[in-house]
Amino acid sequence: MATVDVESDLAPLRAAVKEIGDKVRQLKLDKADENDIKRAVNELKARKKALEDRELELAPKAPSFDRLKLEDLLKRRFFYDQSFAIYGGVAGLYDYGPMGCALKSNMIQIWRKHFILEESMLEVECSALTPESVLKASGHVERFVDWMVKDEKTGECFRADHLIKNSIEEILNKDKKLSKETKDEFEDILVKLDGFSSQEMGDTIKKYGFKSPITKNNLTEPVAFNLMFPSQIGPTGDFKAFLRPETAQGIFINFKRLLEFNQGRLPFAAAQIGSGFRNEISPRQGLIRVREFTMCEIEHFLDPTDKDHPRFKEVADLELNLFSACDQMDGKGARLTKIGEAVKNRIVDNETLGYYMARTYLFLIAVGVDPNRLRFRQHMSNEMAHYAQDCWDAECLTSYGWIECVGNADRSCYDLQAHAKVTNERLSAEKKLPKPIQVVVTKAQLNKQVLGKKFRGDAKVITQHIDGLDEKELQEVAGKLKANGKYEVEVEIKGEKKTFSITADELAIHEVEETKHVQEIVPSVVEPSFGIGRVMYTVLEHAFRVREGDEQRNYLELPPIVAPIKCSLLPISANEKLNPLIEEVRRELSKYELSHKVDDSAGSIGRRYARTDEIGIPFGITVDFESEKTPHTVTLRHAPTMQQVRLEIAKLGPVVSDLVHNRREWVQVTKEFPLFSATEN
Amino acid sequence: MATVDVESDLAPLRAAVKEIGDKVRQLKLDKADENDIKRAVNELKARKKALEDRELELAPKAPSFDRLKLEDLLKRRFFYDQSFAIYGGVAGLYDYGPMGCALKSNMIQIWRKHFILEESMLEVECSALTPESVLKASGHVERFVDWMVKDEKTGECFRADHLIKNSIEEILNKDKKLSKETKDEFEDILVKLDGFSSQEMGDTIKKYGFKSPITKNNLTEPVAFNLMFPSQIGPTGDFKAFLRPETAQGIFINFKRLLEFNQGRLPFAAAQIGSGFRNEISPRQGLIRVREFTMCEIEHFLDPTDKDHPRFKEVADLELNLFSACDQMDGKGARLTKIGEAVKNRIVDNETLGYYMARTYLFLIAVGVDPNRLRFRQHMSNEMAHYAQDCWDAECLTSYGWIECVGNADRSCYDLQAHAKVTNERLSAEKKLPKPIQVVVTKAQLNKQVLGKKFRGDAKVITQHIDGLDEKELQEVAGKLKANGKYEVEVEIKGEKKTFSITADELAIHEVEETKHVQEIVPSVVEPSFGIGRVMYTVLEHAFRVREGDEQRNYLELPPIVAPIKCSLLPISANEKLNPLIEEVRRELSKYELSHKVDDSAGSIGRRYARTDEIGIPFGITVDFESEKTPHTVTLRHAPTMQQVRLEIAKLGPVVSDLVHNRREWVQVTKEFPLFSATEN
Repeated sequence: MATVDVESDLAPLRAAVKEIGDKVRQLKLDKADENDIKRAVNELKARKKALEDRELELAPKAPSFDRLKLEDLLKRRFFYDQSFAIYGGVAGLYDYGPMGCALKSNMIQIWRKHFILEESMLEVECSALTPESVLKASGHVERFVDWMVKDEKTGECFRADHLIKNSIEEILNKDKKLSKETKDEFEDILVKLDGFSSQEMGDTIKKYGFKSPITKNNLTEPVAFNLMFPSQIGPTGDFKAFLRPETAQGIFINFKRLLEFNQGRLPFAAAQIGSGFRNEISPRQGLIRVREFTMCEIEHFLDPTDKDHPRFKEVADLELNLFSACDQMDGKGARLTKIGEAVKNRIVDNETLGYYMARTYLFLIAVGVDPNRLRFRQHMSNEMAHYAQDCWDAECLTSYGWIECVGNADRSCYDLQAHAKVTNERLSAEKKLPKPIQVVVTKAQLNKQVLGKKFRGDAKVITQHIDGLDEKELQEVAGKLKANGKYEVEVEIKGEKKTFSITADELAIHEVEETKHVQEIVPSVVEPSFGIGRVMYTVLEHAFRVREGDEQRNYLELPPIVAPIKCSLLPISANEKLNPLIEEVRRELSKYELSHKVDDSAGSIGRRYARTDEIGIPFGITVDFESEKTPHTVTLRHAPTMQQVRLEIAKLGPVVSDLVHNRREWVQVTKEFPLFSATEN
Repeated sequence: MATVDVESDLAPLRAAVKEIGDKVRQLKLDKADENDIKRAVNELKARKKALEDRELELAPKAPSFDRLKLEDLLKRRFFYDQSFAIYGGVAGLYDYGPMGCALKSNMIQIWRKHFILEESMLEVECSALTPESVLKASGHVERFVDWMVKDEKTGECFRADHLIKNSIEEILNKDKKLSKETKDEFEDILVKLDGFSSQEMGDTIKKYGFKSPITKNNLTEPVAFNLMFPSQIGPTGDFKAFLRPETAQGIFINFKRLLEFNQGRLPFAAAQIGSGFRNEISPRQGLIRVREFTMCEIEHFLDPTDKDHPRFKEVADLELNLFSACDQMDGKGARLTKIGEAVKNRIVDNETLGYYMARTYLFLIAVGVDPNRLRFRQHMSNEMAHYAQDCWDAECLTSYGWIECVGNADRSCYDLQAHAKVTNERLSAEKKLPKPIQVVVTKAQLNKQVLGKKFRGDAKVITQHIDGLDEKELQEVAGKLKANGKYEVEVEIKGEKKTFSITADELAIHEVEETKHVQEIVPSVVEPSFGIGRVMYTVLEHAFRVREGDEQRNYLELPPIVAPIKCSLLPISANEKLNPLIEEVRRELSKYELSHKVDDSAGSIGRRYARTDEIGIPFGITVDFESEKTPHTVTLRHAPTMQQVRLEIAKLGPVVSDLVHNRREWVQVTKEFPLFSATEN
């Protein structure tokens, strides 16, 4: 279908999105009733989805992509497979085999070089086991939940929203005599479901009498299910902990140490590569939604009033496929935009966020994501996480649709403030003022001697409490002292709350003038967060090819830098005469740290190459008897083109190493060395 | 103290060990009463400990090693520190900061090259969350426990053995009027305690009325405390899981896939780098005993009748410090032995185990373990893990005494058999016979049609059960059919056990002659298992130095290959003239992937070098004004000797890269380039 036809097909869907998008804007402007806004937003989401579904339907497809074939390959050649399969398997858990492991660890090494080394970030590695108190402060204990309902008799669990959706769809499909009224009600629910509260879901289930789809038993009220894996530390059973749902919190917790490591200076970035865990209720979609996964996260701490980035100019001209919240509401598509322009026009909030989006793009392309199937989609205000201020997801198009692979969020100062509040630690930095300023500050002056005598053992806690009060609180205390002549202080001593009375003789509160050279600031945080499993799956889909003219022959065209094995080494026969040559090639490859695999099995060269192509080995070396005529030579094969050149073994190392590290192109190699023709049969 | 004096001091202790060692041997030979053997073994342990304590006392010490100073450095410069400190901290959990992270990841990279790449091992990455069923099969649910007692009122927990030991020692110290009888009883308990059953510990606590040391409340009976962290998968709460206590099980579970990946051939080795978790009751000793740690494990699968290793000859002449079980019983010390000799004399069981011990040695030395503080100690039969057949620990001497850093165990075929038994999967390999053989096999022939009619829905389970019987079981069935005309088969159907009666008409059992080309074998497993945190701590202790003549100045002499940062870059002043030179040096270092840190803070060069020496940066570059006389030159400093040479910036990359990768020695560099003298003040 030509582009113009596609656009005329999509036009009414785009108009429908824009219509409701404009309505949402107007409602917000009018500060309309919250329920009306919610209703409109849900409708907006539904129409956006309809538009996107149709766009995907009409998009030109990789004609022969067959997910089953790819999955078969990944399983058969042990890239990854379900964990504990011999014990029946566990949904959402995967084991990586030698190929998947090498691919993943290559990606992580590239990530480390691209981000941590290139930008001198501070890498940390924190505990995965995390005390409940930490995750309470971060908001995860309260907010990181899905709602589920249980079969009243068997206890089987269902995600409440999935259950409602499936129940309604089943009725709509089966019951052809449904009244127009009920049908409309159901369709309305489907549209609104995404924004339903637990109360609304419970009411819906009750109203229509939805049952367990398996037993037809009644269902419980929706209960919150926290998506973190629970555990406990130590033997008593009362020290609750969770497996971390993200690595980010470990970095926030270490902020003070990291700031000190950076000699007190802002900005700086810290990074962590490690496991995250999410107890999904019913994981599906292979590597896309799993219960245990590797994350690579960066927390870039910066002055909230200065989000410029010194290296932004290096990427300003890079064109990214941006899909802004505004364009989404207008029913438009993503568009190629120079990141410099986007920041200038405030589509992207600031240089640092824009810089990381550009760097994310460069990383994804380097490891093999197809730039034509990559976009940066801005979160709309209704879908932002509880901590986020602005967020741009790098989304990749796969056979599962557009999936989020990287989040680039501005978390503002949410997390540091949350932890500071609970722990009473000062999680802030000092910023040198351009010139010293005079300020009036409120200070407490305690008569510690008198307090010590009066409160004895309790004096220390009381003193600490008063020292911890901020200026505003001190002013309140001053007011009480003035009004009542005393101040009742409540503190916790050995788990019990106690009240003590302090008089104006014991505590004086003054306003004093001070010269300030620095200003205290709580840094903002820009966070690029990578799900490596999702990136890897995307790369595998984008690399999957069918050999032209031979539908049975699949191969992976991975960028050589991420390929699990760089070179195959195939002796043309089992003749022992070839052994010294094979040894010579191996030594040459090892010298350049090029991973390789010898395939000396029987079978034609062609069949063996098909096997190595399948697992994405980009280069192949055939050791043959031609070397009797031209000693110490072999052929070097380029898997995507199947072209071969003939060259001396001593040149293999530098040539293949250059090819792997993108310092030379294959086409150059074909000009430097004679092409060699051999049939692959 | 001269060696001869040391030996005469130790002689009576050695004799005492040998005396009881001989007694243990004799008792075992005489198949004496088990309790007598246990008593003697406990006495042997106690005497061995007395000998080792005295040996350590008399050993020449690193004169100025001060653990507090090292710990202060590691904390202050954020190598690692307690996790969640701002929340009060959690014992046994540590966060690695930028320096620790880089050091650790360098070690892991070296490990990966030294083992996985060099030996073409199959790397896997498996889930840390592990279903209970898997760890039941492996024996961990039952055996991976410590015994604890609880305060009857507060619920506070104590390790039962620690509690008894501490209670007795307190009484012995305090109560000077203790009867000779009780004193002897107590001393006897201390000697035997290590081998006590839970019953014996409970009885001891009751007999002497030991109380909680904190509240003086009564204590419960000893209860088993499993050292695995519990969790659960999915929302129902009835899918129990644990965090894996070792990475090994993930490899065993994947044995079939890995064997297939290796085209069905033995031997092969698989490896895994990942986290392990152990819920210690009261972790102490810093990085030595932690609750979450990184392991690097290898499982080398091989034919149990052929444990030779093709590359053993490459290491046969390497001398290791071996401390055999036999020498331990004889009260002797460890001795330098060529690993080839040790295998020949059957001190080390086989070539593969010996090969890995040698490779382990080479790895540990490469990352900075002092060879004089490293020994391989063989487990005595009483201390072997439940799965092990032979085990040699690589132990390193630290300020905590000798600590186990690497276990080299022959796990025989324990694990594969355990998982095969529970899952009914065949976890075995086929070995080609030298020539085909004729064998008589027992086979079941089922009349499936008749069975299907008779048992309907249950037929499938019955058929599967009979197909799963091995030859010995089939012969028993044949006997029953012959004797009774029927065979009562018990199977589990939907969780319930049911019995069905099968007649000789429905099931015939024949003996048939078959030609066999292959033999089925369950591979043995040799497992080198590295605790990277312990290796890292050892290396830090062994690298810690005090600058001669300046007791306040500590530094780390790490092998450059593991050093977190390879180069410091110090401009001699803040003069802007130096900026282009700094940029030039940075580019040169980046080209060779040499990590570096610019320190442009104020303070003398000497002070800044002291700071970089402290964190083990091996090479320093000073950018100064000498370059006005000799353009594009800088000085290069070697931290251990504090010597400096002057060279062109364009030569920095190759020179430092060679030094880091052990391709050039510093002394060579001092001959190639002019020495430069500058005071460090």
